[in-house]
Amino acid sequence: MTLTDNIKQTIDNKTKPLRSLGQLETLAEQICLVQETTQPSLSHPSVIVFAADHGLADSGVSAYPKEVTAQMVLNFVNRGAAINVFCQQHNLKLQVVDAGVDNDFDPSLAIIDKKIAHGTANCLRQKAMSTEELDKCFETGRSLVDNLHSEGCNIIGFGEMGIGNTSAAALIMHYVLGLPLNECVGRGTGLDDEGLNKKLAVLSSVTQFHGKLETPKKILEAVGGFEIAMMCGAILRAAENKMLVLVDGFIASSAALLAIKLNSHCRKNMIFCHQSEESGHAKMLNAMEAQPLLNLGLRLGEGSGCALAYPIVASAVHFINEMASFDSANVSQKSD
Amino acid sequence: MTLTDNIKQTIDNKTKPLRSLGQLETLAEQICLVQETTQPSLSHPSVIVFAADHGLADSGVSAYPKEVTAQMVLNFVNRGAAINVFCQQHNLKLQVVDAGVDNDFDPSLAIIDKKIAHGTANCLRQKAMSTEELDKCFETGRSLVDNLHSEGCNIIGFGEMGIGNTSAAALIMHYVLGLPLNECVGRGTGLDDEGLNKKLAVLSSVTQFHGKLETPKKILEAVGGFEIAMMCGAILRAAENKMLVLVDGFIASSAALLAIKLNSHCRKNMIFCHQSEESGHAKMLNAMEAQPLLNLGLRLGEGSGCALAYPIVASAVHFINEMASFDSANVSQKSD
Repeated sequence: MTLTDNIKQTIDNKTKPLRSLGQLETLAEQICLVQETTQPSLSHPSVIVFAADHGLADSGVSAYPKEVTAQMVLNFVNRGAAINVFCQQHNLKLQVVDAGVDNDFDPSLAIIDKKIAHGTANCLRQKAMSTEELDKCFETGRSLVDNLHSEGCNIIGFGEMGIGNTSAAALIMHYVLGLPLNECVGRGTGLDDEGLNKKLAVLSSVTQFHGKLETPKKILEAVGGFEIAMMCGAILRAAENKMLVLVDGFIASSAALLAIKLNSHCRKNMIFCHQSEESGHAKMLNAMEAQPLLNLGLRLGEGSGCALAYPIVASAVHFINEMASFDSANVSQKSD
Repeated sequence: MTLTDNIKQTIDNKTKPLRSLGQLETLAEQICLVQETTQPSLSHPSVIVFAADHGLADSGVSAYPKEVTAQMVLNFVNRGAAINVFCQQHNLKLQVVDAGVDNDFDPSLAIIDKKIAHGTANCLRQKAMSTEELDKCFETGRSLVDNLHSEGCNIIGFGEMGIGNTSAAALIMHYVLGLPLNECVGRGTGLDDEGLNKKLAVLSSVTQFHGKLETPKKILEAVGGFEIAMMCGAILRAAENKMLVLVDGFIASSAALLAIKLNSHCRKNMIFCHQSEESGHAKMLNAMEAQPLLNLGLRLGEGSGCALAYPIVASAVHFINEMASFDSANVSQKSD
């Protein structure tokens, strides 16, 4: 019997009507396939939040001032943010990475210093980052994942913090999926109509400046950001390590989109946690044939969707390991 | 300041963009209002599964034989069912109540014996239960809830097990919402097209036999079942006790629908956990203006949706209690 058949039989023999656990069953199948077993487990679940600033934020694409990136990093360190609360609730290890925040943090703080630069360059007039910077992002993302993997982690979620990064994500979506900008650009953390129009105009100028961008790496160099590039490298490495990858909202999904474009094999490791309120996200998920676990109207980032969806992923693992089978429980099956 | 304003201000001062936690914020507001506090808590979370048989099951409305009700009750007791696994995962107390299963259980088993009869009468030809039996169901449901409440429980989910009970729930939906039967009747635990047509024909005969049924109690007497009636009484009492009520899928929602019809005040205590695959459920939820927390394609019952959604409810409580405020964390707010 193949592993796929074996997994299916294990699930179908559980004491429940066939397929009655819906998406939990699909999820259990996926986890079993990634781990190549019918007795999956989750160990050392972790979340990495990558934080970085965006030069484009100076051009008025966000409702929040740029300083908020650094302020929120400090909030993460002080355990005051939503992601802290949800990680604490589910016993998820949380790492905060300075991928390129425009601030010099006290080195004694619990921030992993992987600063590439004090924010990307403003992509309205130049490339957001150099090829060397991009390569460094990928290497860093990979090595951070390897560290957790070597500690026994087999499931990892990625979050981000970066004022202006819904703009980078929208541009990535536009380039990768070939969709018009207005289908990719949304209100971010709360732009009004006027703000949204301005953001759209700015991003339109960005695309005029950069022209055609064919490859994921060219796109990342052109529009950034450091946190998205690091996450992209991290996703690819997690999949190589046969880890499960929890994908959060709009920005994390843009990193996932690039990772799939670079190596489509990583798609099978991805668990899409949440459909964001950000208007382009549904289309982005569709393009990846992703059915997210939650749809709670979140638009926060930070990996919050990963942490909130984690117990659902754990439920999929629990039911396949712990439920009785029809035979062992003497329960009659459906009459045909 | 009113409690409502106080709750809103507490949530809006958390270090996150306004409303960026979406449905979690609505949920936190609801919980605070029910508990009349800005510092809510969940204590002694519990799930009661009511099990009972349906006389109508003899008329071929289910894909599973009637014996499965008793077999699954034994599976609950042996901790082999999905609800056991999910309650264990989230540390929810689980009680299994024999509301009227057509089986005599060993009294030494951990089943709460509240058997009204060995299943309802077949509502194709007579009333499913007498007025006395219905009253007993309500009293029992209320007293079970009071017992948990006196132990300190302030949040309770209700599950059910009963072969044939999607038929009772569909009939209740038809009577309460005044919708044609074919919009209320679904495949239950897995009927094929032929089975579905047969079920529809049988239920159509039931409605012809009983004629107009105006009140929730008349409906329950006519079509049953014991587990739905007990759940309805339990919901009403939980709301009187200011407890939060976790509403599961299609069958539990039919009990919620009746409870609201009996006393609309109980609606504010209800947290709708899951939108079932059962075709009528979306319309039933709409009629109650309910936005369920999960939509995972479950069609299992047992209270499984309540248990799976519980961590989301807990997240709402955690964020309002534990997240930092803008002032305390020195994070800048949105620029206007």
